[in-house]
Amino acid sequence: MPSLPLAPGATLGVLGGGQLGRMLALAAARLGFDTVILDPEPDSPAARVAAHAIVAAYDDEAALAELAAHAQVATYEFENVPVAAVDRLRALGVEVAPGPRALAVAQDRFDEKTFLNGAGVATVAFAAADSPEGAVEAVGRVGAPALMKTRREGYDGKGQRWVEHAADAAAVFQALGGAPVIVEAPAAFARELSVIAARGRDGAIAVYPLAENHHAQGVLRRSLAPARVSAAAAAQAERIAVRILTGLDYVGVIGVELFELADGGLLVNEFAPRVHNTGHWTQDGCAVDQFEQHIRAIAGWPLGPTDAVRGVEMLNLLGHEAHDWARYAAEPDSRLHLYGKRDAKPGRKMGHVNRLRPL
Amino acid sequence: MPSLPLAPGATLGVLGGGQLGRMLALAAARLGFDTVILDPEPDSPAARVAAHAIVAAYDDEAALAELAAHAQVATYEFENVPVAAVDRLRALGVEVAPGPRALAVAQDRFDEKTFLNGAGVATVAFAAADSPEGAVEAVGRVGAPALMKTRREGYDGKGQRWVEHAADAAAVFQALGGAPVIVEAPAAFARELSVIAARGRDGAIAVYPLAENHHAQGVLRRSLAPARVSAAAAAQAERIAVRILTGLDYVGVIGVELFELADGGLLVNEFAPRVHNTGHWTQDGCAVDQFEQHIRAIAGWPLGPTDAVRGVEMLNLLGHEAHDWARYAAEPDSRLHLYGKRDAKPGRKMGHVNRLRPL
Repeated sequence: MPSLPLAPGATLGVLGGGQLGRMLALAAARLGFDTVILDPEPDSPAARVAAHAIVAAYDDEAALAELAAHAQVATYEFENVPVAAVDRLRALGVEVAPGPRALAVAQDRFDEKTFLNGAGVATVAFAAADSPEGAVEAVGRVGAPALMKTRREGYDGKGQRWVEHAADAAAVFQALGGAPVIVEAPAAFARELSVIAARGRDGAIAVYPLAENHHAQGVLRRSLAPARVSAAAAAQAERIAVRILTGLDYVGVIGVELFELADGGLLVNEFAPRVHNTGHWTQDGCAVDQFEQHIRAIAGWPLGPTDAVRGVEMLNLLGHEAHDWARYAAEPDSRLHLYGKRDAKPGRKMGHVNRLRPL
Repeated sequence: MPSLPLAPGATLGVLGGGQLGRMLALAAARLGFDTVILDPEPDSPAARVAAHAIVAAYDDEAALAELAAHAQVATYEFENVPVAAVDRLRALGVEVAPGPRALAVAQDRFDEKTFLNGAGVATVAFAAADSPEGAVEAVGRVGAPALMKTRREGYDGKGQRWVEHAADAAAVFQALGGAPVIVEAPAAFARELSVIAARGRDGAIAVYPLAENHHAQGVLRRSLAPARVSAAAAAQAERIAVRILTGLDYVGVIGVELFELADGGLLVNEFAPRVHNTGHWTQDGCAVDQFEQHIRAIAGWPLGPTDAVRGVEMLNLLGHEAHDWARYAAEPDSRLHLYGKRDAKPGRKMGHVNRLRPL
């Protein structure tokens, strides 16, 4: 086990080489750390700013051993990393944060909501099913219309469908591939919010101001932060973050997606055990952004301040929208963040812009 | 010649892999560029955050060809890069900024001051010498005590000595190695200031607020920015920056060291054709820091805003002072920047801290 706090000069491992891994590597470099990236794809965005890159499957034994030879502390940039890979790294003496329990819970939508309710955090009503008949019964319990989602995998709106009538449930179950599903009651939400928070190895918790988020086709397009919310909503969001982080004995940054109801109450939609797209505004809105905060947490450093020093409107640049870089570069109040991805496929997250706003 | 503005996804070349190259590479990455670093030392601080690293002498023909195969635009992180290397890269079709004239002028203290005076920028009185007799004569003209410096090389106070009496000039000339020297009258300065400025490929100029600098044994210890200066001094500094940048048909960021006299007038001490230690405060004091500004300039992008959004006290961490990282990491208003250098030799620049202050 590494000696913590980890001193600068050490190497941090990151499973996943996309934009989140890239921005984590950049933050780690600023603090004097080297990074080793493990990703199945060669030439990943993160690998190109890292000291070492390993190109292999996440569960490749030799690759994990190589990572462990470089890094005493590791993290991951997305929640579909196999838990077995994290367990293997831990067996090799690598301290992986967030830990395997947080990862496992986040990988299964039913386990996630069950954990949340158990921790005293409200969600929509939900039920699990692993057969067409079970799906019909689950929709019957939750009530139609309902959202059916595969319990595992799926992100950005993939792997989910609406069930308009209970009678359709079996067909939708099959259309989703026949894998175990969760059926969720619709949330009659007024706004989508999110809260980014961090927990250090000493148990200290730091919570950023809320962001208001706008999605299209399941993909985040725009965040406004700090969101204009009541003091009660801010306090509730902080309470939610604290319950999740302590309930999971969590270390690192977490992204929690919230539904704000018409009465101002908050439900948790889901959480991601990692830095989060709705937290990109912190790069230009806070003295310590979510990426540095995550590095601080996993390295056993004290957490940094989370108060907003500027308002930010964050715009995701999807696919060809990144071709407008010159326009954003010319805006004095826009801070451009591009991920170095080679191929601007439609809908692909290529970068984002943080437009600075008065607080 | 490259098509400008250079689109994200392109690779930028940097000659020199120290902390300045590292922070340039990090800024380039944020804008979606890859970086290739050329440095004679393996495992340089910049190489560990760059997509490609070439380990070779700066004038190595094969290395320069390899760099040119990656990068259409290149820059350098220090002024003692051989002009021949820049010329070679240009012959290979690489656009190098700042250009060879700025580099050549900055490499020779006599040429530098001659250029400055010719551009209407005041300096201390000076004279050149390339023999012991010439040195005596030069001190006689400038007046003793005077500072004798080798015309070329030397930085952070190295390669220079005081001449207390004209009669000592020949001995000091020999002690400096017998190379051509410049003899400078002492500047009766009240403060040391500096101005960081940038010129884009379109000729646009952007000037940051002044910094007040404190040196010990010729090495920068501390900068305060924005410095408290009169409107007249600020205007004069801006005029100086504009004269230097236009006089050299400069592209990129420049660091200009100034002496503030008791009457408030400014003399230029010297300039560096690169990002500058006294500009590190911009990382946490400005929306666009000197590193991103330099990348913007050399890539043909529009320059970013240069106004200060926060006050900063910048402290250099020399040698073992970097071992105090945990103390600075725990200060909520301190932003830590560490360079990933392996060996904390006495006096070596290992990192810096930007302490945030109200404007």
